[in-house]
Amino acid sequence: MKTQALVDLEVVTIGTELLLGFTIDTNAAELGRALSAIGIRIARRTTVADRPEEIREAVDAALARTRLVLTTGGLGPTRDDMTKTIVAELFGQSLTYVPEVWDDLCERFRRLGREPSERNRCQAEIPERAVILRNRWGTAPGLWMEDARGVVIMLPGVPLEMRMLLQHEVVPRLAARAPDRLITSRVLRTSQIAESSLADLIGDAEDALAPVSLAYLPGTEGVDLRLTAWSVTAQEAEASLARAAELLRSRVAPWLYAEGDRSLPDVVLDLARASGRTVALAESCTGGLVATRLTDVAGSSDVVLGAVVAYANAAKTALLGVPAALIAEHGAVSEAVARAMAEEARRHFGADLAVAVTGVAGPGGGTEEKPVGTVWFGVADADGTRAVRHGFPGTRAEIRTRASQTALWLLRDALA
Amino acid sequence: MKTQALVDLEVVTIGTELLLGFTIDTNAAELGRALSAIGIRIARRTTVADRPEEIREAVDAALARTRLVLTTGGLGPTRDDMTKTIVAELFGQSLTYVPEVWDDLCERFRRLGREPSERNRCQAEIPERAVILRNRWGTAPGLWMEDARGVVIMLPGVPLEMRMLLQHEVVPRLAARAPDRLITSRVLRTSQIAESSLADLIGDAEDALAPVSLAYLPGTEGVDLRLTAWSVTAQEAEASLARAAELLRSRVAPWLYAEGDRSLPDVVLDLARASGRTVALAESCTGGLVATRLTDVAGSSDVVLGAVVAYANAAKTALLGVPAALIAEHGAVSEAVARAMAEEARRHFGADLAVAVTGVAGPGGGTEEKPVGTVWFGVADADGTRAVRHGFPGTRAEIRTRASQTALWLLRDALA
Repeated sequence: MKTQALVDLEVVTIGTELLLGFTIDTNAAELGRALSAIGIRIARRTTVADRPEEIREAVDAALARTRLVLTTGGLGPTRDDMTKTIVAELFGQSLTYVPEVWDDLCERFRRLGREPSERNRCQAEIPERAVILRNRWGTAPGLWMEDARGVVIMLPGVPLEMRMLLQHEVVPRLAARAPDRLITSRVLRTSQIAESSLADLIGDAEDALAPVSLAYLPGTEGVDLRLTAWSVTAQEAEASLARAAELLRSRVAPWLYAEGDRSLPDVVLDLARASGRTVALAESCTGGLVATRLTDVAGSSDVVLGAVVAYANAAKTALLGVPAALIAEHGAVSEAVARAMAEEARRHFGADLAVAVTGVAGPGGGTEEKPVGTVWFGVADADGTRAVRHGFPGTRAEIRTRASQTALWLLRDALA
Repeated sequence: MKTQALVDLEVVTIGTELLLGFTIDTNAAELGRALSAIGIRIARRTTVADRPEEIREAVDAALARTRLVLTTGGLGPTRDDMTKTIVAELFGQSLTYVPEVWDDLCERFRRLGREPSERNRCQAEIPERAVILRNRWGTAPGLWMEDARGVVIMLPGVPLEMRMLLQHEVVPRLAARAPDRLITSRVLRTSQIAESSLADLIGDAEDALAPVSLAYLPGTEGVDLRLTAWSVTAQEAEASLARAAELLRSRVAPWLYAEGDRSLPDVVLDLARASGRTVALAESCTGGLVATRLTDVAGSSDVVLGAVVAYANAAKTALLGVPAALIAEHGAVSEAVARAMAEEARRHFGADLAVAVTGVAGPGGGTEEKPVGTVWFGVADADGTRAVRHGFPGTRAEIRTRASQTALWLLRDALA
């Protein structure tokens, strides 16, 4: 397999907040993925404070090393926003007022029913020979500056604006210059199995995957398996990734729910749509998280009729009609109540399938018999009702996430 | 007020996965917070790939700039782990096998019921004059190297191990050297107002805040205002931050909902608890997100009775009793339906206060009259029912988050 040099780019991230640890830098991962996909390798990422001399030094050194630099941050209307002024100086250019940018910004404010302030006017001051990357998602346009030394691309630091400008304005321009080489990867997504058990199942298959590399990426929703092919043509990469994926699939099939970016809610919605079935939920300890995750997906209204978040016991009775005596006898976290909640949700919403979740998310409320992390699930459909008990480790947030993942897993099982 | 030089430190993060965007770097924020608290400023953070020449160049340059460098990553047992070899070379030292480290590692494996592999043996090879930072949470010890050029501290990249070694081994050693100086900060949290409008309100107050600095941190939940006092004693910092916070508060009071780490759900729950009131929700476009955010908080069951996620129109009628004719006449996204949803949720749950959300989260479903982002809110309590319309920008996820924030804001208003 050939190993050919990739195009290198350096990222300079500007923001004191990032160095102080007040903000987690999600742009970095976004940039890495988007640029890898078009064969551009981020050779280095440097994060500096909102200080003119540090920004200048970092951009200058990065430009000298790779001739291709992308900055994020420091394009807003406040006084710690100084990126474009400094980069313009590096290119020996001054800022000029561009009425079209101001008009764009005013138009954007008008659509939102607001007035721009005089302070925003500085956002229409642009280095004289910069290409303006129009920002339809915020007030600061991106900027592309280029001369014999190389290219500096400036994007705002707000994650949505960064992502949109990257995808709509930067990637197409860079892709046109990049060679036909890619860093390609493929993800197999598993759930309901521990990382170490997966590793045991995969075992010696890892050697057989070479030259494709395998990474285990555990999270609260499950363990993703990432296969990566480096620096090969698209065709070679596709073939070797397909071989590797096939081998992995044969080892972990029962725990595999999706490939790529598809989430468990996507899978559930597609399965339901394919069989024309509708879904309802009755949630207690997850407090609406299962419904939120399903309805995060655009178009979920075909499938999801709704949910009752019956957080208080009285709500389980008033909204769902779960008998108060049943709750008194078995407790709200019990097989009987989970079954009743699922059946009643199915009936009230007129859904084909309903899943119920009732448990102890903690940190308080645990008992010896039902410790924190105990969750009962009920599933009701045309075949009847069943229930299952799980015990989840972790914090309140982790228990809720794991419980929502298991609820979705049970929906998937019932729909498959 | 004195402005004294702080201790500067540079972080060098080693890991190709981080540059490719497969992993989000949470260590960075962890380091920023822990070091700020003992008066150490991270002057720069550089992320490089697992390549010898890039690691060498980055550590060497950082050491030349600040004489104090902390690296994370590249200490594991695999072949792309080369940090300690390279740093040892920079210090002119060779690696020697340290039996105590190997014994420690074997003991750790034994406790987990496993066998170390021969591959792990290289983890016991240590630069000859390095101080070993014992790692009780994983297999790779941290290392502290020091000579006339300065200090390089090497920590593993696994977040748990990094955090534990940082807190138990590194912070105490650094704190002992750092002067009695701190980087202290305080956050005022605002919502329902744009960054530029806030900046107009604050205006010349920013000068009066000096030497405290002000940062605007916009997000989908609102704009946080972070005040930071640099390089002063704890007592001075407290006084100057209190003065600065007071000044800001006087300018932005109507949009201020909390200080510090408190979230809008925390505020809503505390207000409700203080007045002994209970809350219910009727959610359409937010799909359970308002309920999820409130019940994320431990102890929310005192206040939150539950929610109906009435995603389908039929569910608005079947579960809440909103007349089908009302929906047919006005549309599901309308003042009339928002009011009816709030009233019915209040009645069905027997709550003191209910908020309803119905809107177009997109990307589809927008019309000229009701474009994507249009959301109607209803609020029902003992004083009656009112409704308000908003238009939110952004993606589906952002519109849902902004709508949930406004729903919480309306709850706060009604409870205040």
